[in-house]
Amino acid sequence: MELVEGALSGDRRAIARLITRIENDGDDARADLAQLYPYTGQAHIIGVTGAPGTGKSTLVNELAQAYRAADHRVGVIAVDPTSPFSGGAILGDRIRMRDLAGDPGIFVRSMATRGSLGGLARATADAIKVLDATGFDVIIVETVGAGQSEVEIAQTAHTVVVVEAPGLGDDVQAIKAGILEIADVFAVNKADREGADRTAAALEMMLDLGYAAPSQKVMHHGRLTEVASGNTAHHPAGDETATEDNWRPPVVKTIALRGDGIPELMQAIADHRRYLESTNELARRNRTRLANELERILRDELMIRLLDQVDQASLARLMERVVAREIDPYTAARQLMTGDNHHD
Amino acid sequence: MELVEGALSGDRRAIARLITRIENDGDDARADLAQLYPYTGQAHIIGVTGAPGTGKSTLVNELAQAYRAADHRVGVIAVDPTSPFSGGAILGDRIRMRDLAGDPGIFVRSMATRGSLGGLARATADAIKVLDATGFDVIIVETVGAGQSEVEIAQTAHTVVVVEAPGLGDDVQAIKAGILEIADVFAVNKADREGADRTAAALEMMLDLGYAAPSQKVMHHGRLTEVASGNTAHHPAGDETATEDNWRPPVVKTIALRGDGIPELMQAIADHRRYLESTNELARRNRTRLANELERILRDELMIRLLDQVDQASLARLMERVVAREIDPYTAARQLMTGDNHHD
Repeated sequence: MELVEGALSGDRRAIARLITRIENDGDDARADLAQLYPYTGQAHIIGVTGAPGTGKSTLVNELAQAYRAADHRVGVIAVDPTSPFSGGAILGDRIRMRDLAGDPGIFVRSMATRGSLGGLARATADAIKVLDATGFDVIIVETVGAGQSEVEIAQTAHTVVVVEAPGLGDDVQAIKAGILEIADVFAVNKADREGADRTAAALEMMLDLGYAAPSQKVMHHGRLTEVASGNTAHHPAGDETATEDNWRPPVVKTIALRGDGIPELMQAIADHRRYLESTNELARRNRTRLANELERILRDELMIRLLDQVDQASLARLMERVVAREIDPYTAARQLMTGDNHHD
Repeated sequence: MELVEGALSGDRRAIARLITRIENDGDDARADLAQLYPYTGQAHIIGVTGAPGTGKSTLVNELAQAYRAADHRVGVIAVDPTSPFSGGAILGDRIRMRDLAGDPGIFVRSMATRGSLGGLARATADAIKVLDATGFDVIIVETVGAGQSEVEIAQTAHTVVVVEAPGLGDDVQAIKAGILEIADVFAVNKADREGADRTAAALEMMLDLGYAAPSQKVMHHGRLTEVASGNTAHHPAGDETATEDNWRPPVVKTIALRGDGIPELMQAIADHRRYLESTNELARRNRTRLANELERILRDELMIRLLDQVDQASLARLMERVVAREIDPYTAARQLMTGDNHHD
């Protein structure tokens, strides 16, 4: 609790220790988060994602410094879904940000995986809450890669910037992995390279063809979202159709290494924020985001509760039977859930 | 059941319909899988992954045809964790494989996401079971991207081939996303391009430095794996240390478009298979894989069961309170689990 008070008063070390506590996922962290939660909901969360080699990290650095120069308090969370070694690599990218370490208005944190698939998404969502509650009004979440978990993490953001660059294999390949559908803003970085105009034109053409249209921009969601959002009496019927308002993702050319295009990128992000606020889209995104978060927590807690109830030796025996092809995994799951293997 | 009999007798349409049923995730599918399960465990499963632009799909096509020419029955599952549009793109890559459609010894299937994060990994694991049970003795699982869910999917494989290519941004970036740690074999594709030797040398250097060492090659696992494997009386104490036997991932240069290096790649995969069989590593991988699978099923089933018990209107009210910051997600989860919002 002292830690929470320290963090709320702006103590950087307290903030850092809170996030570490979250990563370690103890009961203390839950209590801290409950205490912080009422202070959240203020920040604009910007997700930045894209394939490797696009210069994404440099772009994030430039963007963070530009927001800081415009007197925002800026949090940067770099999410690396690969393992410890890569965690080190992304930290390396951050070394230049150490120059800013003396400035209390900017906070940079890398988060790497610790085992379970859902764990990183959950820890990231919680780290965002800490920075949000402690007064960072712009939070940039950078994800490496373009896989589904990164997509999910990017979607904890209000505005998703997808970074492309010329010369990454052929264009179709780059766009295929480019998670077009989740982009609110495109940045074509390394715009001084050959092929930049072609990449930008290809993106505009995709947009002309209706890919990445808002109606397609359905957030990935779990089973709970289907139940908890949308078609209940608590949401006005107009809610869903509000997302049909037209937002065409702008394509902004940048040369992050020189800071070129950063003001234009910030403008595009600000425009998108205004769009979100002027429609029901902001409310819809917040609700989906929180429903997804609740589901992640539930899935993990339900699993923990089940494992507490199951006898270890009989679980190991059941696994042996699955390995020996005597019983299939679905039947084994049903047995575990009906309690045949529980403690007496 | 008829479908299962048809599939087991080699009827391609029955196999295709079974996989569709699995994707739709109904109760029928469960019964089918239970019936097929005893026939599984025969195939060698090869995961192929790597960043976009590496020519991965072409490599998979060549590899599939080479295995077929060597008289194997070959299944190819192309997993695309991005949404429907990209699903279309990867299908495009497969068009050339239609040439092989008349051959009953080769079966190609693309699988795309349908909403939930765990759903794709689960459907892929089940599709592998179908092909395994129906006599495809080599199954190649190709994943797009290098995110954590792809890593997890790749790890349903016995042998993971990581594809790299020269000229994808700077080397460090490419390797950072290259999920080094999960590679059993490296393919440096597009080896006729400038920089191929440098990419191969960089990989060898990483291997010299001990990255991607077997001891680091811990599979991503969930909470159940920790309980169900490893330290129980059912596993000999030597089990874990067996993984310390030395397997240094070979680096094979390929030019998939010309078929160059494919025999060498097949040799590397065969060598790895022999390594797995001569150590306890094969048994360990199978056990971890099945424990992960059981956990995915449990997490989903537990969630479904909870949602069945919860009253929809009170769930929606609870979500509203979370959105209004009156209650934090962890506390909301606890309330849902203790049954405060359940049907009477």
